[in-house]
Order: sequence, then C-alpha cells, then structure tokens
Amino acid sequence: MGKIICTGLGPGDPDLMSLRSYRAIQGAHHVAFFRKAGYKGQARTLVDGLLPEGVVEHAMEYPVTTEIHFSDPEYNRQLAAFYDRWADTLAEMARSQDVVVLCEGDPFFYGSFMHLYTRLQGRAEMEIIPGITGMTGCWTATGLPITWGDDVLTVAMATLPEDELAARAANTDALVVMKIGRNLPKLRRALETAGRLDDAWLVERGTMADQTVQKLTEITGKVPYFSIVILHGQGRRP
Amino acid sequence: MGKIICTGLGPGDPDLMSLRSYRAIQGAHHVAFFRKAGYKGQARTLVDGLLPEGVVEHAMEYPVTTEIHFSDPEYNRQLAAFYDRWADTLAEMARSQDVVVLCEGDPFFYGSFMHLYTRLQGRAEMEIIPGITGMTGCWTATGLPITWGDDVLTVAMATLPEDELAARAANTDALVVMKIGRNLPKLRRALETAGRLDDAWLVERGTMADQTVQKLTEITGKVPYFSIVILHGQGRRP
Repeated sequence: MGKIICTGLGPGDPDLMSLRSYRAIQGAHHVAFFRKAGYKGQARTLVDGLLPEGVVEHAMEYPVTTEIHFSDPEYNRQLAAFYDRWADTLAEMARSQDVVVLCEGDPFFYGSFMHLYTRLQGRAEMEIIPGITGMTGCWTATGLPITWGDDVLTVAMATLPEDELAARAANTDALVVMKIGRNLPKLRRALETAGRLDDAWLVERGTMADQTVQKLTEITGKVPYFSIVILHGQGRRP
Repeated sequence: MGKIICTGLGPGDPDLMSLRSYRAIQGAHHVAFFRKAGYKGQARTLVDGLLPEGVVEHAMEYPVTTEIHFSDPEYNRQLAAFYDRWADTLAEMARSQDVVVLCEGDPFFYGSFMHLYTRLQGRAEMEIIPGITGMTGCWTATGLPITWGDDVLTVAMATLPEDELAARAANTDALVVMKIGRNLPKLRRALETAGRLDDAWLVERGTMADQTVQKLTEITGKVPYFSIVILHGQGRRP
C-alpha cells in the first residue's frame, strides 16, 4: 500500500519549501500537479531541476478556470467530474505506490488539493505537508510586518461584492486580498470607500526572482488573478 | 560588513523549516533568539542538533512577559529598553559578521523580531526568511482545510474584549484565535454568543511530536498562551 503525499511548495521561491516537502519530492516516483490546459503549471515549474530521474508526471488539467463564471452550474459540474476522476485515479495508484502531489503555497489554505482530499477520505492514506502561504511570501516582499500586538487580520477574496469588500477593509487592522485579476477596479473602489486605498500594496509573484511590489495607487494596467493586495496592521509596539 | 538574517523556523517541527532557513542556520557563526528568562526558549529548542560546532549563542531574555499587563506603561518601558539594547548589540555585531536570528513561525506575523527590525532600519543590512506560521501548522494538525472558495478568514487575538471576539466570530467564515491562555473562558463565552462554540478546535503544539487536537468543548483545564483555536470555513466546493 502506498500513500498520497500532498507537498506544500510555498510561495514561489523553491528555497522556501520545507525540508520535508523537499525530501518527498526528491524521493518521488510519481508526481501529480494541477495546471491550466496549455500551460506548464506553476507548481510543476517550481520543482524544475528537483525531480529525480525517471519520475512519472501526471498533469491534472482543469477543464475550466475562468472561462465560465463560478456561479454557473456548468462550472461546478465540470469541476466536480474532474475532481471525481482524479480522486479515482490517485486512489488506484496509491494501492501500490506513493504519489506526491505538488501544491503551491499551503495545501489547506484555498488549495485545489482539498477537493481531492475530501473525495479520498477512507480510500487512501494521505499526508499533508504544510507550506508557506503565498500571502506570507507577499507580505515578506513588501519589507513590512503584517500584524502587531492585537491587530486583527482579515483575508478576503476580491471576488466578493464591492460593499462587502469595503466593509471588511474598514473593519480590520491588516488586510490581505487574493484573487485580484479582473476584480481590481471593484477592489480599488471598495478600498477608496473604506478610506484605505492609499495604504494598499499590490504584490505580484512574491518571493520569485521577478517579483514586483507597488503601491496600489501606482498600478495603471491589468494585474494577474494570483497577485495579492496587502494592507499592513499598525498595532501596538513598544 | 555582515548582515542580520532573521530565519522563520516554522510551526514547531524542525522538518518544516525552509531550505533557506536551514542553510542559514547550518552556516551560522552567531545565533540570537528570544526567550523567557529561566527557559531554554522555543526557537532555540527547535534548532537542537542543527547548529554548527563552535557557534556563539546570544539569548535575548524578555525582561517581562505576562507579569505586567501590556496596558501598564511600565510594560512598554521595559520592553522598549530591551529592544533598544538588543538592536544596538546586533547592529554592532553586524558591522563585522553575519548574525542569524531564530524566530518561531513567520517573522513578520506577530513576531518579536519586528521590534528589532524597525529599530535597525538604516543601521544594518537585514534579510527576512519567511516561515510557515504557527496557525498553518495548527490547521494542518486538525486534518481539515481552513478556507474554501470565497471564505473570509479572520485572525484575532484572544486578548481582545469579549464583545469584539463574539462579533468577529459571528462575522467570518473561518476564524483563527491566538494568545489563548488565561483568555480561554472569555473566548469560550464569545464563541457561545456567536453560536460557534461547538465547531471550535483547540490545538496545542501543532506539528510537534506531542501535539494535541481537541474540540474546544472537550477542554476542561487550563491551556497554554500559545495554543490556537480554529474554526474552519465551509465555503464553496465543487
């Protein structure tokens, strides 16, 4: 009997993965990873040069990412079928061997593997190796601590309605907003309403060689879905 | 010229530190770490067996932890003087050599090093190596994902007033509460008010060999200050 080992790879710089994830990858015979069709995949790219000779790679290609809105039942149907199929495949593989699943960031923090994890309960032994979250990589990239003393930190997705984003921004000390992309204009208006636009940072590819860190007010064009907006807490400090 | 390298050590299991932190520690000539007087210190314990031969250790002992309430000006005065003094010491050391500062979790997330970091701006070169936060270790320990889809995650300290804790718990999907200790009865009442007590978990020493994971309703005695309470989000999942 094998097991399914889900390795959190951290925020993007390969040196920021944990010793345990590193060893799991170095010892892998089978690796599986999610990716958008037509792309190499961020998780796979992150382990370039680290996979052992002869490893078998299994690309799990999303049938849909942003082509259909997530409120459309068809989005849900296609993704559910996709996760069902891969859960079956991994469960079958784990009968005889270990399978290492490569996951960006931390597997239990808004991760795709969670959808396999719930489907695989009772069907395969699983091990979750946590990772540094993308948001931790991004606040480190800003060079400023995110939370002090009794600060409250709120993590919210830019997919939320504008009025909720504004209320969240007004009612927290530190704020992290993920899933930006086409939601940027809405988020900008929400932060303006909350009186916090001037203090917001936008980080792209935090901890990677080509990371960018800018004040949100300096951004003019489009930004990637996986960029992150950061508002730092200003709490108690002796 | 040397520099000050602050290494995030992660949640407690030494195998969960990053490759970069591991290498910095293995190459250290001087390490500094915070601890409560009379204790070995959690950060120092975490690197047992990893420090090179001949390394010089600098224990930075807090003059006060919980003996004086943080609202007392004396608490602030003593801690400020302590951070001033160690900032001077580290700046002086960094004139001629590297100093590795050992930090539990992630340095920029409610970390003590932040108080040295602000004082050392412009006085020494610094490098921050992020780490897996303690809360990430704790939600991994529960075996349940923390956030799904568009879930909002709130991180709050149990030192906050009861009514604020109750409001925060009622107004979020996922919740992480830190700094528990003697604040447990207040937090329990707040979660009850919010109708979420039954779904709360308490994790002690998450990812360490002696970790404990319990439903909060099963806890009868005292719990450590550094235990963490977790409420998982239940968001969208295909």
